[in-house]
Amino acid sequence: MNIIKYPKQEEWAEICQRPHLDITQLQATVNTVLSDVRTRGDEAVKEYEERFDHAVLTSLAVTEAEIDEAERLVSEELKAAIVLAHENIHQFHAAQKFEGHKIQTREGVTCWQKSVAIEKVGLYIPGGTAPLFSTVLMLATPAKIAGCREIVLCTPPNREGKVNPAILVAARVAGVSKIFKAGGVQAIGAMAYGTQSVPKVFKIFGPGNQYVMAAKQQVSLGEVAIDMPAGPSEVCVLADETANPTFVAADLLSQAEHGIDSQVLLISTSEDMMQQVQAEVERQLNLLPRKEITQKALENSRMVLVASADEMMALSNAYAPEHLIIQTKNYDEMAAQVVNAGSVFLGQYACESAGDYASGTNHTLPTHGYATAYSGVNLDSYCRKITFQHLSEEGVRQIGHAVELMAGAEQLDAHKNAMSVRLNAIEK
Amino acid sequence: MNIIKYPKQEEWAEICQRPHLDITQLQATVNTVLSDVRTRGDEAVKEYEERFDHAVLTSLAVTEAEIDEAERLVSEELKAAIVLAHENIHQFHAAQKFEGHKIQTREGVTCWQKSVAIEKVGLYIPGGTAPLFSTVLMLATPAKIAGCREIVLCTPPNREGKVNPAILVAARVAGVSKIFKAGGVQAIGAMAYGTQSVPKVFKIFGPGNQYVMAAKQQVSLGEVAIDMPAGPSEVCVLADETANPTFVAADLLSQAEHGIDSQVLLISTSEDMMQQVQAEVERQLNLLPRKEITQKALENSRMVLVASADEMMALSNAYAPEHLIIQTKNYDEMAAQVVNAGSVFLGQYACESAGDYASGTNHTLPTHGYATAYSGVNLDSYCRKITFQHLSEEGVRQIGHAVELMAGAEQLDAHKNAMSVRLNAIEK
Repeated sequence: MNIIKYPKQEEWAEICQRPHLDITQLQATVNTVLSDVRTRGDEAVKEYEERFDHAVLTSLAVTEAEIDEAERLVSEELKAAIVLAHENIHQFHAAQKFEGHKIQTREGVTCWQKSVAIEKVGLYIPGGTAPLFSTVLMLATPAKIAGCREIVLCTPPNREGKVNPAILVAARVAGVSKIFKAGGVQAIGAMAYGTQSVPKVFKIFGPGNQYVMAAKQQVSLGEVAIDMPAGPSEVCVLADETANPTFVAADLLSQAEHGIDSQVLLISTSEDMMQQVQAEVERQLNLLPRKEITQKALENSRMVLVASADEMMALSNAYAPEHLIIQTKNYDEMAAQVVNAGSVFLGQYACESAGDYASGTNHTLPTHGYATAYSGVNLDSYCRKITFQHLSEEGVRQIGHAVELMAGAEQLDAHKNAMSVRLNAIEK
Repeated sequence: MNIIKYPKQEEWAEICQRPHLDITQLQATVNTVLSDVRTRGDEAVKEYEERFDHAVLTSLAVTEAEIDEAERLVSEELKAAIVLAHENIHQFHAAQKFEGHKIQTREGVTCWQKSVAIEKVGLYIPGGTAPLFSTVLMLATPAKIAGCREIVLCTPPNREGKVNPAILVAARVAGVSKIFKAGGVQAIGAMAYGTQSVPKVFKIFGPGNQYVMAAKQQVSLGEVAIDMPAGPSEVCVLADETANPTFVAADLLSQAEHGIDSQVLLISTSEDMMQQVQAEVERQLNLLPRKEITQKALENSRMVLVASADEMMALSNAYAPEHLIIQTKNYDEMAAQVVNAGSVFLGQYACESAGDYASGTNHTLPTHGYATAYSGVNLDSYCRKITFQHLSEEGVRQIGHAVELMAGAEQLDAHKNAMSVRLNAIEK
């Protein structure tokens, strides 16, 4: 890890830089696959599954029998862990339910918001060596609480045409309605446009490789909404002299193992702590199976020594990390100053993996500095707040004249007239 | 208006069709302007202002003196209307403040959400013949309530280099921090990248022509968030035999006058009502200054006769209108069945222009069927919900083992280890 001591504020922009993501080069390939799926539906999806996932499929839908089989394949111990995580995620997201109140802005003018679930949502779960069944819980649990009528999940099968059993178990626990064997761009296309077997959805959630990201971006320009733009995962750890270097090192490594483009940033007021963390990183790194990936990610990563707690916080807010771990003596005070972050972990025991799996918070979070403008996935992500209003005759009297004046000044006479005909009617 | 009687459900997709929007052809022009603004900043913005708005500017910033002058130019009557509208918008959006609660998902595992304002937001207000000062109130009022530190507004000047005075007055009333004379693509670029005088923002709000839409879409792929994808404005009116045909006709016309691509849909269970509305539309149309535009929009518009109130509601939900007006005897029951809409107006007195200007609800709403997945602008649009968590030793005991198991099953050993080092520490 690169060490930067007492940087000037002019150097912060450089420290906050992310690896550059250019997915425009993929766009041509992505567009070809998308338009093919749009035109030919299931047939195209099956062909791409054969080409990219080497799976020959007769049907895209996962059957109940396949899920039953998955239940037998997953250990009782892991199932219990999935159920515990689901309970916590459910409890935290259920507490986010919105209750609107009717507001009388003037006598006879009543306005309110109502939260209504998006009818159909699509969840994408990547395949590959590590089956992200935890992401199934994170995306499907709030969809179910919101009341989405249709919760569709696409995930690529292996060469035998099978989906990882832990993914199927998690999907059943969380209440997914339909599961399809489809990965990559073809899965995103299937959910965006609908095929003979995959329903068209209104919003697509979930992580993926660069092709999946590019496909989500593309369909979000026209067909569907998406959860958020994506980028490589990242963590920022703020540690003072009271932090536990073993814990801090483990937290940095847990982020770095995600991929070679992951980013890890340690900001500390204690040079001694930084040195201890560095030694611990070296020691723990050698014990990890994903050592090579982790090491590459650490090469892009930084340890920054700063003069004060305020500066730690200011630099973190400038970086806008996806995950922010605060291991300082006054973590509560510092938490109050967080302006830009996806999810914040306070104190020495709140490791990122607690929130990644089982504490109850969501792990689908804004990366790449998007925390400046985006929230992580939460119950709101599955709902729309629709506004309602009712006016009585008195309401028309209270605001009618102002509406006429403003519409007239905007030269929108038909707008004005819509109020005038009502004012005339009640004045009769 | 085209009349369709008792359509079969297979014909609904055709009825719900919007005019096709293809802005890809504009993309090359848009990208040229954006990259020029990114490179050359203020100088480029000034050159494009001269070329497109025929305004020669020495400085982009609107001065306090110019706002003072605007205050003198706007009538006291209009100012009072702006203040009344602002009060109502303020009251309705202030009531949307989020209060998070700490949730203990397990003993020692505490999670919560905190709503934090986006630090810097940019508002775009189009110029042209009709100065949309009402949109200034709609976009700046919630930004101020949210606590955005910097509220930047860009709007094109006229040939004399002046901004419409009502826009400046509304901006001062609503609490905009900085106003710049810049329109079109160059304004979007200035706010997305920042220039010498215009601050870079994290999210851009506001309507605009096709170039502005294309520019917002483009910068949203990398630099900033945007409020929502945009399309032509639209209304759907549900009217049974108890509706007032004069009011219904006025409401249809008020939407149609926006532009030739505006869409208007009347769904009714009463053929008699439809005929009366049609006669009223003809009569009122002849009195409107924007008759030609309005007439063109009506040519793309439809009146649909259906068999029941349930069918009215179902067709409306399939259409997913930006504005939905329900003028039926049982409007409260029908309101409960709204699934897809931006903003809903209930009963005969709640005309769309009430909400467009002064009732308190926001008028920046999802068009083009995006109401299936997007909310209109509301207080949330200016905030992020950041999650926080704290674990005690007991918290680690409660969920630690589940985290280890799940991380292990996902083959993320460093994630597992981050929990293991803590479990080991507390077991000592």
